[in-house]
Amino acid sequence: MWKPERASKKPLYQQIADHLERRISYGELPPGSILPSERKLAEQLEVNRSTVIQAYEELRASGLVESVVGSGTRVSRTKWGIAPKHTPNWRQYTEGGTFLPNLPFMRRIREVTRSHPNIINMASGELSSDMFPNDIVQSLLQEQTFNEHLGYDDPQGYYRLRSSLVSVLERNNGIQTTESSILITSGSQQSLYLITQCLLSPGDAVAIEDPSYCYSLPMFQSAGLRIFRLPVQQDGIDPDDIIKLFREHRIRMLFLNPNYQNPTGTVLSQSKRIRLLKIAVDLGIPIVEDDPFSLTAFEGSPPTTLKAMDTDGIVLYIGSLSKIAASGLRIGWMIAPQSVISRLTDARQQMDFGLSIISQWAAERLLNSDQFHRHLDQLRVSLYHKQQIMVQAINRTLQGRVTFHAPDGGLNLWCKINQVVDDGKLLEESIRRGLVYVPGSVYGSEPGFVRFSYAKPYTADISSGISAFAEALNTI
Amino acid sequence: MWKPERASKKPLYQQIADHLERRISYGELPPGSILPSERKLAEQLEVNRSTVIQAYEELRASGLVESVVGSGTRVSRTKWGIAPKHTPNWRQYTEGGTFLPNLPFMRRIREVTRSHPNIINMASGELSSDMFPNDIVQSLLQEQTFNEHLGYDDPQGYYRLRSSLVSVLERNNGIQTTESSILITSGSQQSLYLITQCLLSPGDAVAIEDPSYCYSLPMFQSAGLRIFRLPVQQDGIDPDDIIKLFREHRIRMLFLNPNYQNPTGTVLSQSKRIRLLKIAVDLGIPIVEDDPFSLTAFEGSPPTTLKAMDTDGIVLYIGSLSKIAASGLRIGWMIAPQSVISRLTDARQQMDFGLSIISQWAAERLLNSDQFHRHLDQLRVSLYHKQQIMVQAINRTLQGRVTFHAPDGGLNLWCKINQVVDDGKLLEESIRRGLVYVPGSVYGSEPGFVRFSYAKPYTADISSGISAFAEALNTI
Repeated sequence: MWKPERASKKPLYQQIADHLERRISYGELPPGSILPSERKLAEQLEVNRSTVIQAYEELRASGLVESVVGSGTRVSRTKWGIAPKHTPNWRQYTEGGTFLPNLPFMRRIREVTRSHPNIINMASGELSSDMFPNDIVQSLLQEQTFNEHLGYDDPQGYYRLRSSLVSVLERNNGIQTTESSILITSGSQQSLYLITQCLLSPGDAVAIEDPSYCYSLPMFQSAGLRIFRLPVQQDGIDPDDIIKLFREHRIRMLFLNPNYQNPTGTVLSQSKRIRLLKIAVDLGIPIVEDDPFSLTAFEGSPPTTLKAMDTDGIVLYIGSLSKIAASGLRIGWMIAPQSVISRLTDARQQMDFGLSIISQWAAERLLNSDQFHRHLDQLRVSLYHKQQIMVQAINRTLQGRVTFHAPDGGLNLWCKINQVVDDGKLLEESIRRGLVYVPGSVYGSEPGFVRFSYAKPYTADISSGISAFAEALNTI
Repeated sequence: MWKPERASKKPLYQQIADHLERRISYGELPPGSILPSERKLAEQLEVNRSTVIQAYEELRASGLVESVVGSGTRVSRTKWGIAPKHTPNWRQYTEGGTFLPNLPFMRRIREVTRSHPNIINMASGELSSDMFPNDIVQSLLQEQTFNEHLGYDDPQGYYRLRSSLVSVLERNNGIQTTESSILITSGSQQSLYLITQCLLSPGDAVAIEDPSYCYSLPMFQSAGLRIFRLPVQQDGIDPDDIIKLFREHRIRMLFLNPNYQNPTGTVLSQSKRIRLLKIAVDLGIPIVEDDPFSLTAFEGSPPTTLKAMDTDGIVLYIGSLSKIAASGLRIGWMIAPQSVISRLTDARQQMDFGLSIISQWAAERLLNSDQFHRHLDQLRVSLYHKQQIMVQAINRTLQGRVTFHAPDGGLNLWCKINQVVDDGKLLEESIRRGLVYVPGSVYGSEPGFVRFSYAKPYTADISSGISAFAEALNTI
């Protein structure tokens, strides 16, 4: 983001006025658009409010902007011609379309982490940067020779990456598949987007866990789906709940995260898995198995997957590198019956024409690197260590005030607050004290739950984060 | 794709039966799904039909598949349990959703280029692989140190890439913009997808050129848009046509490709650009300027862009590396007023969470490489050379039978056939003779036009391709 140069001879206000004039003349701030308030712009540019006031006065004097009672300062409509022009009413355009904006809590969290990059972040669902395999990626890019075709790739994804996944999935997750049943995506988000957009129609009923990560995704609402809930117990959902939902609402798809479920951390028990698959097959309802975390299993041997038990092609399996390597690689995969894969491949080609060969090649090299296993081992140790630090901090400072069950894998600790709280107020008080996390209601739970990620904050910050939360709780 | 091993001791038919059994047991071919016909599978696997018949008999004997009168062979529904199971009716799912499948001609072309990789390809809109900057990409990956954050990137795109684009666009296209007005996408396809999905609503009227690349994109129909046409003359569309369309249909957006228009190769004249911008501003209709080709200008100095003339923020500008470097990089950009950029950034995050940092980093390094300019110079020379060879071949073998005007840039030659032809038959006769191209009707033109790409075929193949077409034309 542009900032004025303090070392420059040109006064700050003049630099700001010039910058705004440039943006107006480039059409970035079209005639009629509202400029930020003086206070807000001063904050963004880290200058005094009086400097911004002076800059706006300068622009007003040149006729480029005008004051409007009640709505601040806007770009003049008349500057560029004699008659007023009818530039597009961008607000009308940006409010159209089928995408819903993100939930208010999520937008607030994003805004806070953007404007305060040093806040202790227990909200993000990613690893901290010291857990990424930076060195491995850096050295493989330099040591391996990139020699792949730079043209349009197979829209199903780079063949060698799919081949490597066939081995990785068999070895680590007990899943037997073939290259032709795999679609490479940019991550779980795109896999879910393709499924909700291409296999379901507006008005279709789907069932998700309660609470569930899916609940926080506006894409489910954007796709016009009717969402029904399967309450999560200590050992996962009760599969028999599906029968009742199916009879009443003709559920067309199940979205489940059986291993270290997000946000609760629970693992679906083996007996429930068997029952679930039987019911899904009997009723003919496909299961989307979102499985981002199974390789984080602290003990090293991950829980089984539904896909490994699926002989009927009823499970659409979704995985990615985001939670086990790095989210910025943007590599995920989906395993599904071939008719589904072809349909989604065709649709995906209409959306983005597939992924860059460079990132797919790097992912393939990473999966085949000798060091990748060592990375996974280190990752599990670090995650367990960070979880333990968080658990100890909670036991020390929040004893009896929250209830939780520490999972054997995954990135999150799900806590119930043992008192009545106002979720919004608690979040704001925590932010004020330097901590951000996700209130449970974002995942569709009742008030009074929070999801703390122990993966994203740095080890040294975890205790202070929990203390900040304890202090915030004291004010409520 | 799997093929039986001829060197193996196991008979071919047994290898095929085992492979199919594995795919059935993995759930890839779920109960009830139809196997390929014997003839088709024999072709795919490059074996005799009798071998496939034997393999199917083997599977039938084991009860794994069954014959169904009139629909061939299908996976048994009863193999995995005593009672018939209700596996999902995948057909119902894959026919749902809002994505329309690709146009039949386009699917046929894709199928042909997949199954006959050596066919002379004048259909594809990409460069031939010898025109890609392979060496530059290979050496920059090895010589530069990748040191970027591997976490979620700014959803608007890698900041340094946007910064580089600010300079590149100013230097090459006369566009003045700032980092905050740029959104990095995976290419023009994703830019158009975001615009049609997020800024327009089903039922909205839009105008496109006639003929137009956009017409070939099912995404326009998938988004429920009503499409109206602006006929393209030698110097582009007639801007005054917009006024009439606007009065009658309340056109909400214009999609134009003013430089070396796809498919016609025409350049919108300067006087028409001025008139177009005036009309668009007067009526308040945004213009989407798709500009993939301007840097291919054979003379080296590209025609101006609408965006460079746009002081009202009425132009949404779309560009990419696909036609000037390599399509497999999957890097594109959009320049728009900030309110539009924020809306599209938010929606895009819901779809795919942004692009890989690795491919964005590589693109940034490429744009800043000293060798990139040399690459562009070479590219222009090669394109011009290939176009000349095509023009000479046409003059030699099709004299008087087709009419065309060779453009000064771009990848395509648009030809009118001077006789009445059946587009489908002509395409099939050409395919039979080893050439594939795109019939003009794919772009919404009347019958009797073809688009020949001179970029994709290798130089040595261009004459034979045109001869194959001439022979095909003789049979019609």
